[in-house]
Amino acid sequence: MWLRFPGLRSLELRLGLRVAPQRRQQQQLFLLKRKFSKGMEEEAKKKAGYMAVDNHVQNNQALGIGSGSTIVYAVDRIAKRVQDENLKIVCVPTSFQARQLILQHQLTLSDLDRHPELDVAIDGADEVDCDLNLIKGGGGCLTQEKIVAGCAKRFIVVADYRKDSKSLGEKWKKGVPIEVIPMAYVPVTKAIAAKFGGEAELRMAISKAGPVVTDNGNFILDWKFNNVSDWRKLNVGIKMIPGVVETGLFIGMAERVYFGLEDGSVCFRDRDSQ
Amino acid sequence: MWLRFPGLRSLELRLGLRVAPQRRQQQQLFLLKRKFSKGMEEEAKKKAGYMAVDNHVQNNQALGIGSGSTIVYAVDRIAKRVQDENLKIVCVPTSFQARQLILQHQLTLSDLDRHPELDVAIDGADEVDCDLNLIKGGGGCLTQEKIVAGCAKRFIVVADYRKDSKSLGEKWKKGVPIEVIPMAYVPVTKAIAAKFGGEAELRMAISKAGPVVTDNGNFILDWKFNNVSDWRKLNVGIKMIPGVVETGLFIGMAERVYFGLEDGSVCFRDRDSQ
Amino acid sequence: MWLRFPGLRSLELRLGLRVAPQRRQQQQLFLLKRKFSKGMEEEAKKKAGYMAVDNHVQNNQALGIGSGSTIVYAVDRIAKRVQDENLKIVCVPTSFQARQLILQHQLTLSDLDRHPELDVAIDGADEVDCDLNLIKGGGGCLTQEKIVAGCAKRFIVVADYRKDSKSLGEKWKKGVPIEVIPMAYVPVTKAIAAKFGGEAELRMAISKAGPVVTDNGNFILDWKFNNVSDWRKLNVGIKMIPGVVETGLFIGMAERVYFGLEDGSVCFRDRDSQ
Amino acid sequence: MWLRFPGLRSLELRLGLRVAPQRRQQQQLFLLKRKFSKGMEEEAKKKAGYMAVDNHVQNNQALGIGSGSTIVYAVDRIAKRVQDENLKIVCVPTSFQARQLILQHQLTLSDLDRHPELDVAIDGADEVDCDLNLIKGGGGCLTQEKIVAGCAKRFIVVADYRKDSKSLGEKWKKGVPIEVIPMAYVPVTKAIAAKFGGEAELRMAISKAGPVVTDNGNFILDWKFNNVSDWRKLNVGIKMIPGVVETGLFIGMAERVYFGLEDGSVCFRDRDSQ
Repeated sequence: MWLRFPGLRSLELRLGLRVAPQRRQQQQLFLLKRKFSKGMEEEAKKKAGYMAVDNHVQNNQALGIGSGSTIVYAVDRIAKRVQDENLKIVCVPTSFQARQLILQHQLTLSDLDRHPELDVAIDGADEVDCDLNLIKGGGGCLTQEKIVAGCAKRFIVVADYRKDSKSLGEKWKKGVPIEVIPMAYVPVTKAIAAKFGGEAELRMAISKAGPVVTDNGNFILDWKFNNVSDWRKLNVGIKMIPGVVETGLFIGMAERVYFGLEDGSVCFRDRDSQ
Repeated sequence: MWLRFPGLRSLELRLGLRVAPQRRQQQQLFLLKRKFSKGMEEEAKKKAGYMAVDNHVQNNQALGIGSGSTIVYAVDRIAKRVQDENLKIVCVPTSFQARQLILQHQLTLSDLDRHPELDVAIDGADEVDCDLNLIKGGGGCLTQEKIVAGCAKRFIVVADYRKDSKSLGEKWKKGVPIEVIPMAYVPVTKAIAAKFGGEAELRMAISKAGPVVTDNGNFILDWKFNNVSDWRKLNVGIKMIPGVVETGLFIGMAERVYFGLEDGSVCFRDRDSQ
Repeated sequence: MWLRFPGLRSLELRLGLRVAPQRRQQQQLFLLKRKFSKGMEEEAKKKAGYMAVDNHVQNNQALGIGSGSTIVYAVDRIAKRVQDENLKIVCVPTSFQARQLILQHQLTLSDLDRHPELDVAIDGADEVDCDLNLIKGGGGCLTQEKIVAGCAKRFIVVADYRKDSKSLGEKWKKGVPIEVIPMAYVPVTKAIAAKFGGEAELRMAISKAGPVVTDNGNFILDWKFNNVSDWRKLNVGIKMIPGVVETGLFIGMAERVYFGLEDGSVCFRDRDSQ
Repeated sequence: MWLRFPGLRSLELRLGLRVAPQRRQQQQLFLLKRKFSKGMEEEAKKKAGYMAVDNHVQNNQALGIGSGSTIVYAVDRIAKRVQDENLKIVCVPTSFQARQLILQHQLTLSDLDRHPELDVAIDGADEVDCDLNLIKGGGGCLTQEKIVAGCAKRFIVVADYRKDSKSLGEKWKKGVPIEVIPMAYVPVTKAIAAKFGGEAELRMAISKAGPVVTDNGNFILDWKFNNVSDWRKLNVGIKMIPGVVETGLFIGMAERVYFGLEDGSVCFRDRDSQ
């Protein structure tokens, strides 16, 4: 009997267990439940992505397209509606992956030169707090994602329930991603610790030697913070440090977040409803 | 009759010639005076660079080295003093040119990884107002220059009298340089005009086709502004626009500016003395 | 009376001449002839661009679009034909400028991810020899231009008569542009001189301080050569030097070159016709 | 029964456990031997690194420093000798990691601008064939590594026995890394497969979304090849494809390779000794 818990990409934990027969049934029950729950979760993410598209996407719009597992469902839905309803939609990607998704679904690719004003941007998040402040940038595309979100009249987030937290840092333990000019990574690291506490670490690559290089040719610091009371002020404080290109803090940008829940249902939260 | 031979870039030689003999002598007098004055100016720039070095550079320091015509004199002086006084000095450059200067003078080259805290940074400026706010970035190295200045305990500027103005924009007519992520240049252009008025223009290259690409791989907007009352607030406002990497506004950073004057003398202005 | 010889972009030479009346007529005659000739030349470039498009562009093609003054006419013509004949054409640009041209003419923009095989690429050249070997890269986009040309089944060049030479170097005096990884610019400079003679110089920027940075984030060397007997071998020799990204030598790539002549006519030369 | 705990990346711990007592002793013996052997291997790598340094490094040299587990020992040794023998040595790194190593050991950091000619470059390899042809670039720094190796009078490789193969591809299964200009990754992928067979795949990142971006801002293809008879010709063939920046094939560059063997000894192979 094999349990398989595929984790982060290549990381795999395989446990081979020969267990006493009397424990076997318990085990199977657990697995069944887990599988069921897993299915429910996926279903909820799908529902959340669909709902975001159905509620916010209309004909003749320019859309910003983010990435992440829920966005895959959102793009599926956009493609379906474009075909069924013959919508005229152009899509601006936030990343290599978003671009691939758009092209795979034969949607119309555009960019911010041609469409500097977007009607809606739909993206995921690494964490969402109760004020709809976000941490983004686990995938290293924070700068492009913030640029695209900043161009959109409405910025809509789709996430699963594990990203939902009361205050930032509760769920996402990897810190706030901060894109920096390579020559400045040491002084920025020091300045952040000196001014705001915590610790910023250079993100190292795995598929190559040395640090992760972003699609803009920069480095990423992951800042593990302690106590933050005013995210807006902090965000300005970090971005104003010379050498900081962008932070993964999206403060006051998201208008609504759709969460896919564990039980297969979807809920959403609005910024104004706080 | 006017002959005009505009040369490379800003370099301009204007010769006023009137053939009428009676005015010729006047003209020659004027030219002589101009040549003399030119020599005086250069002398003043040299003095200003020397004075900055003599007043602020000491043994065992880490220095930030900027670029510009006055900095050439400052580096000359540093090199002389290092040799004469056997100073132990390391130099962190802000640009390709600064790096060349350091190496040509056989000074010790370093970087912000090894010396994230600098004792003094010495740089030029495109314009200096009466509060020691600066416009920098005519040479497109604003981001590196601000990073280096931000790492220094004391940021000292050396300039000639033509850069001295009551309020920014009086003397420097090319606008505030703003470094932007290439994919964002159109929305940033629009956002700046919408929020702060004026007009931002993509800086085009001359030695290559298309826009200037900075040493960080980004584009530069030159923002021609109208009325600005609060430079500090404006600077924050521009830098917070997603896609802006850095602005050429150095607000509250310079501690002292040395000006080489037209008559061959040097004066300086301190931030606190306002 | 004003003669105006606008040179490279901003470079302008203005001569104010008050001449004796008896020479005035001669001068006017010369000017008239020059203006006429200038008009003829432009007409020829236009004709050449049109002819290239009319002879090689067909419905349902993917095109590579280069840059330069003759290409402007070619894109005009493509746009006209797309509209008149309702052609389905996608265009892949080689540069920022080419991209702007495509968008201004409302042609369909694409890229090599979506269209890795192009039917035709149309581009300019800095010089063309009698074997249709080219020097390209005055505008610094040699790498992108060679990539696009290399993806095309047919590579068609449009140029004016001043680019036509017996052997490379006769007309184009600025040297062969070579794109290099910045860290390698000094050893590549030395290696080229040692192996192939001549002199390679780092191309400096005008609108920014320091060297030109290409759209790929690299530097450009301009190699002034002496005697070259075998361009193909030389091109391989240069590209194989570690640190060389691409050369501006396009050897055996162009299939046909259209030349706009001084007298307003167009001629073309084929590779096979040699 | 097998437990398998594959860890991060290539790190793999395999434990073979059989519960039956009679086989247990054998197993323990095997493990003991393996542990012993592991220690021997490390010892051999160390010896190999030391030997390379002792045989090739002398006073007043400029060295190229590569990366990899054996290079750590080589740098240790250089640092020791610099201290003990008061050597004057400057070191040019091939990567972020090499740079860190140099600085951690307080060696003198330099670059190819200042030292375009190196006396010796010492680097690792992913695979070495019997003609001393190498595959390099698992860490994505192939271009910088080839530039540095190309500047060295003598290029010395240090590796462990697992990199030693009769013909390339026997041991290293990940393919030949090829650095490409991002806009060209699809046509280069196709061109390589069409001309040389096999399959080239875009290397995806793990610590960020999308493809690995190299320190030069480019992408990497990993080319899994089938039959190659002439590596030199193939290497030229690949590098000449427009859009290819560099290949991870180092053909005829290494002068000697030191191998740390499984039994704790070191052997070396010279290019001329073939």
